[in-house]
Amino acid sequence: MPELRKDPVSDRWVVISSERGRRPSDFKMPSVAEENAAGAANCPFCEGSETKTPPEIKSWRKPGSLPNTPGWDIRIVSNKFPALTADGEINRTGMGVFDMMTGIGAHEVIVETPHHNEIIPDMADDHVEKILWAYKQRIIDLSGDKRFRYILVFKNYGMAAGASLTHPHSQLIATPITPRYVKMELSNSRAYFLEKERCIFCDIIRQELGAGERIVYENEYFVALTPFASRFPFEVWILPRRHEYGFEVMPDEERLLLAQCLKDILNRLRLCLNDPPYNYVLHTAPNPMVRPGKPDYWGTIQYDFHWHIEVIPRLTKQAGFEWGSGLYINPTSPEQAAKFLRDIA
Amino acid sequence: MPELRKDPVSDRWVVISSERGRRPSDFKMPSVAEENAAGAANCPFCEGSETKTPPEIKSWRKPGSLPNTPGWDIRIVSNKFPALTADGEINRTGMGVFDMMTGIGAHEVIVETPHHNEIIPDMADDHVEKILWAYKQRIIDLSGDKRFRYILVFKNYGMAAGASLTHPHSQLIATPITPRYVKMELSNSRAYFLEKERCIFCDIIRQELGAGERIVYENEYFVALTPFASRFPFEVWILPRRHEYGFEVMPDEERLLLAQCLKDILNRLRLCLNDPPYNYVLHTAPNPMVRPGKPDYWGTIQYDFHWHIEVIPRLTKQAGFEWGSGLYINPTSPEQAAKFLRDIA
Repeated sequence: MPELRKDPVSDRWVVISSERGRRPSDFKMPSVAEENAAGAANCPFCEGSETKTPPEIKSWRKPGSLPNTPGWDIRIVSNKFPALTADGEINRTGMGVFDMMTGIGAHEVIVETPHHNEIIPDMADDHVEKILWAYKQRIIDLSGDKRFRYILVFKNYGMAAGASLTHPHSQLIATPITPRYVKMELSNSRAYFLEKERCIFCDIIRQELGAGERIVYENEYFVALTPFASRFPFEVWILPRRHEYGFEVMPDEERLLLAQCLKDILNRLRLCLNDPPYNYVLHTAPNPMVRPGKPDYWGTIQYDFHWHIEVIPRLTKQAGFEWGSGLYINPTSPEQAAKFLRDIA
Repeated sequence: MPELRKDPVSDRWVVISSERGRRPSDFKMPSVAEENAAGAANCPFCEGSETKTPPEIKSWRKPGSLPNTPGWDIRIVSNKFPALTADGEINRTGMGVFDMMTGIGAHEVIVETPHHNEIIPDMADDHVEKILWAYKQRIIDLSGDKRFRYILVFKNYGMAAGASLTHPHSQLIATPITPRYVKMELSNSRAYFLEKERCIFCDIIRQELGAGERIVYENEYFVALTPFASRFPFEVWILPRRHEYGFEVMPDEERLLLAQCLKDILNRLRLCLNDPPYNYVLHTAPNPMVRPGKPDYWGTIQYDFHWHIEVIPRLTKQAGFEWGSGLYINPTSPEQAAKFLRDIA
């Protein structure tokens, strides 16, 4: 019999339709690696094509090499077709019942490697660590801009996941509002904390480590699990074991283990589901907009949040029901998915 | 410059990225009619294939013809692969921090026509009216089942919109919870009503008819517009002009004009966007679960809601940013979209 399950963080109900019980081989997707190989010609992100992108914001490169020339490991540039623009002030206007504001923000691309076909599971651990370090640096840098309420880091892998260029890259969008889903997680985790004086994510981690059936991977600092109310087949969340509100305040010694965990999960998905398209999204606390000695900043740090990464393989299509209701139907239970992902290694 | 706009009903911000300003010809989608023609062989919804579906729940058919045989205009059957099951009681359980309940519900298919290639814009007005009447009958019938909190009617047109069979059909899912998006609309329209003693939708309709730039079509009883904070390019909402909380209480004389409005909008989308895939979803008030003389029912009618139909052409892919944030980036402003849709006729 199908089950309805509720995610306590987002208050979102999902239908786990065990009758449909789809196994990895039931999801027929073309391997993303083939797409990637096809997109190699004229790639603006490959080493040697630095002039085809907007000028670099930051890069990690060989000593002595010049900006916007070869010799880099990771390169951050503005998105050539940004969704939001960095120039100008935030103006809020009302038009009768409607509210609007100027579309101020930042939209950056983190080019993860100079090599077109080098995907995260194949990279050296310390290179993946460097990508995570690049995320941190950009979040810290942008959080100094008080126009930005939230900084969202995400990755689209494969055309079906929304990638328009195939060269391995992540993106970052800074927004003048806290986006809707993040806001729900923030307010629910705050409400839980106010009631129980415990973090909802810490409680989930404790319960899940005890139950075991939805755990996919763990190391000293991190745990990866299929969430109890997974919206999508083979959805995986990566969480720090220790309570930590923000990704950008993660202690340096934890970062290598996060890199290992992320590599491991992406590799399991690749092996289990024939290199599927996926998205991952970093959920972290909003920009606190509090700076020592800067009185024009305001806000608070949301200590009761617990940062995590949500990885979503894109195996099913969203139909009218999901759009209309926000209620997802998941044909593979998280227990089945976790077992497949555990057994693959 | 891009704009952020907020939908007052759902409290959802969207980015209207006018720089990207995509015109109808920029969305390259295969025409759905070609898909449909390809799917005609062995179609279980065609006249003469009645035994290939579960037995009919209801049909509108020629006098004297028998159930589950040819001779019908519209036919309603259970979904062969239902997301929720109709048998059993609702049991709620807690598992530590998690909540769950049995997946009780109904999942029905409304086969709109016996003819495989007859799509709504090509049907006679009174046939479309009959489809709308079928929706009403099913909502009324299912709302007598007190296990169901909400009854959602929707249509997936084209594979990219989630249709797995190409023969024209709509679907209906009855759920034991009020789905998330509906809940937000319900609570926001209630809050607005409590504050202003006016309906938020009525205010939007009044303002939009005054402004005119987002109006696509109007007749005596209905208005179709591109919402101010459209999430998707060419998104269209159809609303009754007169305040009415529920689709199922629409007076009979209005139904033909709704049929004409729906046909008109779907035809404009077909002409403007080369027969694109789309979803439409009926947003109506939840099952009031109040029945005269039946004391075991409880609940209230949400009079402050205003039913409407949301039509969403599926022209863009959702990427990590939208999944992670719930913030949509729309590359075509609703003013541009409305103008294209007005000018096409």
